[in-house]
Amino acid sequence: MPVLPELLAANQTYAAGFAKGDLPMPPARKVAVLTCMDARIDPAKALGLEEGDAHVIRNAGGLAAEAIRSLAISQELLGTREIVVVHHTDCGMLTFTDEVIRGRLAASLGEEAGAAAAGMAFLPFADVEESVRRDVAAIAASPLIRPDTAVAGFVYDVKTGRLTPVE
Amino acid sequence: MPVLPELLAANQTYAAGFAKGDLPMPPARKVAVLTCMDARIDPAKALGLEEGDAHVIRNAGGLAAEAIRSLAISQELLGTREIVVVHHTDCGMLTFTDEVIRGRLAASLGEEAGAAAAGMAFLPFADVEESVRRDVAAIAASPLIRPDTAVAGFVYDVKTGRLTPVE
Repeated sequence: MPVLPELLAANQTYAAGFAKGDLPMPPARKVAVLTCMDARIDPAKALGLEEGDAHVIRNAGGLAAEAIRSLAISQELLGTREIVVVHHTDCGMLTFTDEVIRGRLAASLGEEAGAAAAGMAFLPFADVEESVRRDVAAIAASPLIRPDTAVAGFVYDVKTGRLTPVE
Repeated sequence: MPVLPELLAANQTYAAGFAKGDLPMPPARKVAVLTCMDARIDPAKALGLEEGDAHVIRNAGGLAAEAIRSLAISQELLGTREIVVVHHTDCGMLTFTDEVIRGRLAASLGEEAGAAAAGMAFLPFADVEESVRRDVAAIAASPLIRPDTAVAGFVYDVKTGRLTPVE
C-alpha cells in the first residue's frame, strides 16, 4: 500500500488550518541546522522551531561534506549567522562501510549499480562524536562560510530526545 | 544575541516529555521525502509525519543532485520504497545565478572564497515545476535507486501550505 495518499490527506488538513502565508524567505532566527535524515529526528520539535525560523539541511549522517553549497546560500543570500550541527546515537552511518554498501547495491540492483556505487563515497563513520567534531571543523574552515560564524556541534540521543554538546 | 541557548532550552522541554525512545532505525512508513531547506517548510507538519515515520532529506532547493547518496542508503540499508520530491513557490534558488552568488561570495568573503565558489555549482533554477520534473526523472533514472520505486513530485505553496502534484 503506497503511503503517498495518506501524506496528501494530511497535507489537506495542514493547509486547511494554515495561517503562516506571509512569512518572508529569510529565516527569522538567522540559524541553519544541519542534521541527519534519520526518521526518529524531528528537528523542528526537538529544537523548538516554527515555520519561518531556520534553514534545516538534512542528509544521511547530517554531513558537512554535502552541505557547504546549502550553507553558503543560507548565509550569503538569506542572512543566517549561526550553524548547529546535530549527529545522533544509533545512526545508520555507523553500521556499514563503503565496501559493504557497494556490494549490497551491486547484489540488489545489478552491474550498473555496482559501477555507480564504486564511484560514490557513501561517507560512513565509526564514531559519532568524532564525526561531529570533524564536521564542525570542516564548516568553520570552509572559505565559503563567514569567518565570524558560530558553529556548534551536538549529539542527539534517539532514546531520550536530548542534545549533548560535543566540545 | 545567539539563538543557540533558546534552541537548547526548547530541547530540554522536548526531552522532558519525550516518549519515543524505542523507535527502530528503519522508517515505519518506508518513505523518503526530499525537500528544500527553506525555513517556511515543516515537512513533518505539512505531510503528517511523526518521529520514526520517514527519512527527510533537505538541501538548498531540495535537489536530487545532492541526494542520491542519501536515497541509496535509505533504500538499500533502511528499506524505504517510496520517494516524494517537494520543491516550493518563492524558492531562493529562483533568485540568483551561479555568476551572481560567486560574485557576492567573493565580495563578502574575499579571494579564497571567490576561488572556492568558482569551482562550485550552486544549482539555481528558473522554473520550479521544471525542477521537480527534472529531479523526479533523475532519481527514477539513477542506477542506485530501485527500479520499482514510486517517485512523486510536488510543488509546495508557501502561501497556502498546500502541495500540488507535478505531472
